[in-house]
Amino acid sequence: MRGAVLHAPGDVRLDTRDDPRIEHPTDAIIRIAATCVCGSDLWPYRGIEAVDGPAPMGHEYVGIIEEAGTDVTTLKPGQFVVGSFFASDNTCEICQAGYPSRCVHAELMGAIGTQAEYARIPLADGTLVATPAMPDEKFVPSLLAASDVLGTGWFAAVAAAVAPGKTVAVVGDGAVGLLGVLAARELGAERIIAFSRHESRQKLARELGATDVVTERGDDGAARVKDLTGGLGAHGVIEAVGTQESMMQAIRSTRPGGHVGYVGVSHDVTLPGDELFFSAVHLHGGPAPVRRFLPDLIDRILTGAIDPGTVFDLTLPLDQVAEGYKAMDERRAIKTLLQP
Amino acid sequence: MRGAVLHAPGDVRLDTRDDPRIEHPTDAIIRIAATCVCGSDLWPYRGIEAVDGPAPMGHEYVGIIEEAGTDVTTLKPGQFVVGSFFASDNTCEICQAGYPSRCVHAELMGAIGTQAEYARIPLADGTLVATPAMPDEKFVPSLLAASDVLGTGWFAAVAAAVAPGKTVAVVGDGAVGLLGVLAARELGAERIIAFSRHESRQKLARELGATDVVTERGDDGAARVKDLTGGLGAHGVIEAVGTQESMMQAIRSTRPGGHVGYVGVSHDVTLPGDELFFSAVHLHGGPAPVRRFLPDLIDRILTGAIDPGTVFDLTLPLDQVAEGYKAMDERRAIKTLLQP
Repeated sequence: MRGAVLHAPGDVRLDTRDDPRIEHPTDAIIRIAATCVCGSDLWPYRGIEAVDGPAPMGHEYVGIIEEAGTDVTTLKPGQFVVGSFFASDNTCEICQAGYPSRCVHAELMGAIGTQAEYARIPLADGTLVATPAMPDEKFVPSLLAASDVLGTGWFAAVAAAVAPGKTVAVVGDGAVGLLGVLAARELGAERIIAFSRHESRQKLARELGATDVVTERGDDGAARVKDLTGGLGAHGVIEAVGTQESMMQAIRSTRPGGHVGYVGVSHDVTLPGDELFFSAVHLHGGPAPVRRFLPDLIDRILTGAIDPGTVFDLTLPLDQVAEGYKAMDERRAIKTLLQP
Repeated sequence: MRGAVLHAPGDVRLDTRDDPRIEHPTDAIIRIAATCVCGSDLWPYRGIEAVDGPAPMGHEYVGIIEEAGTDVTTLKPGQFVVGSFFASDNTCEICQAGYPSRCVHAELMGAIGTQAEYARIPLADGTLVATPAMPDEKFVPSLLAASDVLGTGWFAAVAAAVAPGKTVAVVGDGAVGLLGVLAARELGAERIIAFSRHESRQKLARELGATDVVTERGDDGAARVKDLTGGLGAHGVIEAVGTQESMMQAIRSTRPGGHVGYVGVSHDVTLPGDELFFSAVHLHGGPAPVRRFLPDLIDRILTGAIDPGTVFDLTLPLDQVAEGYKAMDERRAIKTLLQP
């Protein structure tokens, strides 16, 4: 089959890879209907994360069951499925408590690489959620968004304790931050402050529910949020970047007793204990337990309540994967959808 | 009046201080019935925190209203009251959300110094909670404990999301950690793992509700908690020390999705962002909003449900304050009660 492989920073190619096959009886093979490029794929693409030899890429996917292992009981060939970036058994104590991304049997889908024609999905019964019927093609981008960026933005909003009447600020105007705005709206936030200095992203943020846009960053940005909230700070802040500046901006934008939901993959961040202590915020985040939210998110998408697929502003055939990465790297695209 | 003053590291004396007087119409003056020495008083006593000239000491207190300012409406002379280490208005948005320790008008009682015969209590209506009647003398130590160490341990247990059926670990075997054990028991924890290597504290921990005692520290301690919890870690961990080692021990003892409630005043702690991210824990703490819990804690004490006063293993007249500090510094006493 054809699949994207990162050979070196800046060098992603569509190579011929081995066709996946059932390795464990709990596996399924899916034919990828749509996949995409993640902001986190850009870390190795930019050489900020080490690239140790050719690596298959991609961890977001929707597809159709091609083959199910003998122990797979809830899925059958022909079904349309949505999964997330961690395979998980959905039965262990950690999964049952809502943290499938830290399932005791978790496997990283990024190591399998879903920017390809086919993919092996471990623990298929636990990992995948089937749609009730074959979805109309118009829903495919939104279902694909559910597999990572929507699920991650949603988790961040839940971790930020978004609820009716609350004021929420969102650090990061990439796909996750933008869908964090959408999640905050759906969860009833009264006021949603988006940090963004890019006109097209500001516009999309407003379409998705932002009531205010702040262009300042860092401490200036936090001060602006305090100005907008009677000097107190937001009730909840979504952090969707993962840098020292963005984490401190999030913590400093939050009122005492408020909640920071952080999902930007942490890079070279160290949090000062004394400031965190006296901030009195709640801090929760990490790799989003997307699987927890999938049934609800799929339902919201198929009933037309939400349309998160609007974050894909570039759609390319899989063989133009290199351009898909380049456009995101150069911030010409928010998020690239790839069609195998 | 007589009051304790720290002149230099290791040099605490009972000096003659000015009698306090009403400075604002919302103040009250109380006659201190009992006060005590806090673990946090030992930071400047040991010279780890700078001592800039003579400083009045103490922030834990119970007492009797001597005089109430003209704007004080809920209290009158003769009432027995319990307060905490922050004065707070109990009406602002932050107080109403449960964080009086970060009240927009918060004042540190430590700057006033309650290891004395009398103290001025700012924002008396908000800060103080009166007992229904003059309490029997036997309840005084427990009511005094409520003013800080019990309230702080209780907050840590709440922040650690202690609930029936949960497994909780407690880092720190000082008064706050020990009363965190008691709080965890009262909040229904099924299993309570106390970290302690001091025989007398282990014994008290067991009396207060600990089901297991772990003597290992740091990563060895965290590994032991994992051994005791099927490899997963505790559901919730109370951190009551405030050092780099104790914070990492707490985070590493917690299962993914679990809760760390940290109340040890943070000293030279920096949290690694990447480890925190992948730990997927909830982190919440800071200066405990003790005032939130006082009505409930006073009720539990006066009905005999809890007896937190057992953490005071040394009672001295106020004029032996120097010995009170010394005994705690040398770990001969867990906590010293001082009688003016």
